[in-house]
Amino acid sequence: MRSTLGWQADRAGTTLRRTSLERRELRADDVAIRVDYCGVCHTDLHAVRAHTGEAPLVPGHEFTGVVTDIGHEVTRFAIGDQVAVGNIVDSCGACAMCRAGQENFCHEFPTLTYAGTDRYDGTTTLGAYSREYVVRDDFTYPLPPGLDPAAAAPLLCAGVTVWEPLQALGVGPGTRVAVAGLGGLGHLAVKLAVALGADTTVISRSADKADDARRLGGHDLIVSTDQRRMAAARDRFDVVVDTIAVPHDVTPYLGLVALDGTLSHLGHLGTVTVQATDLLIGRKKLSSAGSGGRPATAAMLEFCAQHNVTADIELLPSARVNEALDRLERNDVRYRFVLDMSDLPQNR
Amino acid sequence: MRSTLGWQADRAGTTLRRTSLERRELRADDVAIRVDYCGVCHTDLHAVRAHTGEAPLVPGHEFTGVVTDIGHEVTRFAIGDQVAVGNIVDSCGACAMCRAGQENFCHEFPTLTYAGTDRYDGTTTLGAYSREYVVRDDFTYPLPPGLDPAAAAPLLCAGVTVWEPLQALGVGPGTRVAVAGLGGLGHLAVKLAVALGADTTVISRSADKADDARRLGGHDLIVSTDQRRMAAARDRFDVVVDTIAVPHDVTPYLGLVALDGTLSHLGHLGTVTVQATDLLIGRKKLSSAGSGGRPATAAMLEFCAQHNVTADIELLPSARVNEALDRLERNDVRYRFVLDMSDLPQNR
Repeated sequence: MRSTLGWQADRAGTTLRRTSLERRELRADDVAIRVDYCGVCHTDLHAVRAHTGEAPLVPGHEFTGVVTDIGHEVTRFAIGDQVAVGNIVDSCGACAMCRAGQENFCHEFPTLTYAGTDRYDGTTTLGAYSREYVVRDDFTYPLPPGLDPAAAAPLLCAGVTVWEPLQALGVGPGTRVAVAGLGGLGHLAVKLAVALGADTTVISRSADKADDARRLGGHDLIVSTDQRRMAAARDRFDVVVDTIAVPHDVTPYLGLVALDGTLSHLGHLGTVTVQATDLLIGRKKLSSAGSGGRPATAAMLEFCAQHNVTADIELLPSARVNEALDRLERNDVRYRFVLDMSDLPQNR
Repeated sequence: MRSTLGWQADRAGTTLRRTSLERRELRADDVAIRVDYCGVCHTDLHAVRAHTGEAPLVPGHEFTGVVTDIGHEVTRFAIGDQVAVGNIVDSCGACAMCRAGQENFCHEFPTLTYAGTDRYDGTTTLGAYSREYVVRDDFTYPLPPGLDPAAAAPLLCAGVTVWEPLQALGVGPGTRVAVAGLGGLGHLAVKLAVALGADTTVISRSADKADDARRLGGHDLIVSTDQRRMAAARDRFDVVVDTIAVPHDVTPYLGLVALDGTLSHLGHLGTVTVQATDLLIGRKKLSSAGSGGRPATAAMLEFCAQHNVTADIELLPSARVNEALDRLERNDVRYRFVLDMSDLPQNR
């Protein structure tokens, strides 16, 4: 086994502590990656807070780094390549979803980058809040030149999570898009929708974000508590991307959806309740999405490189991971924390 | 005022009794119609059972008949024309939905054929369980030659309610469609999907309906309690038309929807609860629809005439309306009751 250092949840499930951890010896199709930058996702926060200590938990599933070793069958990568990995690291490869390039929806459930179960040895996967990660080459992406590797890390989860529905819903020049919630997902949804040519509006609880909305490229901002403007925006948007990360009533956002348009509910997974008549009137659609398949992930990275899209990040040394989680919990981040892993040695 | 006869809810809200009722004198753009056939919709049943006696209730909103008089500005119709009317008889004509030809979604709410409020005189509209109806020419449709006027009556509500989502969702040759529930809506959804060239499967609680499913043109039937076949049909259908008329969990039907496909929830209006992950995995969409705009209604009637699509009906004299409602309540109809109004005189 290979040994590295990382940040693992303590038994109480409130903080992460520095620890050594093991990575598997490389299989024929594996690459070993020195993790340079890892984004801090809401999922990580949920996982740490819900941690019971039953299985080891090392979060981190949107990262960039450099290939340091390859298995003997690997041809797509060489030592020294800059690469990126997202939240899934394997899938069955045989089901209809995998065959459609939607490994994120694999019928056998994809292997998650952390807290997943390795398909070969049954071990619990440990995430990229660590200095090394070992992963199948098929789930490793070249990081296109020109993308800042720190600011690109959040593209691998937050980025592709908004990219896939924007693509699936045909967002392009002239599409009227609203993005509700301006956090990690939301600010990338705005940047991507703008880069795709959409007429893009931000819906936010507070007017404070007007400057940011403009800076991100948004064409308008509607404060969600402004009843007059919300009413005036009724039925206006072909696509409403709801990235709000806490439980909330989707009804006001559904009201903004145009005839035959879609509310893509991405930010909070849980029970969603709607009145059928709120869908009926305007033949509106409620949808969701999350993570990305391999083709979409690769295409998203290329698109971001061409359009100079990365996350707005606050870069912290990995030793400050607990501070990052605490601030994320208070929604005190514009717009994504990224951990700089260079304060850890790759091998112990 | 004009006087006619019809079937009005009694104060207790359980039965309808024969009574005389008044129709307005013709406005410039009105036509008077001798109602020959009126379908019995689930909405009628709900309205009668919920009736409190506050406003007069005469149900009936899918009917065919013959023009017997026209206002002086009417040019589209002449006395003797065979015509049809659905569940809306007016709308604002100015909002975005009306301008898009979706008067059924009018921002001021369309005027319903019964239990609506007339936009000019404020009276409660009385439906077509009566021998005469007076209606704006714009909400009157020519009944295409070749369509049996009795079997065509249900097209005006049930038919267009399934037609609009099939059209909006792009159902055509090769589309994989499942229709859940084989009642008034469902059997028309099957006929229309088949006529549109879709590969059409019926999902039913009972295997009893296999012969009917085949006779209606369906290519397959899956019994919804057959766990093995339901599991095998996972992610199979581009469009699932859910016409089940009672409260039910949509989760098993959502499971049948393919990647980027849609569950169109038409049969029961109320609260719909889903798990976001059931939408997320496969980027599935939940939608609804109901009634039809003027362009879609006219197009649907032309399509039905070309493809010889009408409802499978049980024709009863209007005097047996209470029996029809009771049997509908027990789901004892294949597949739509239509009342023959010729047992009532047009004018008292």
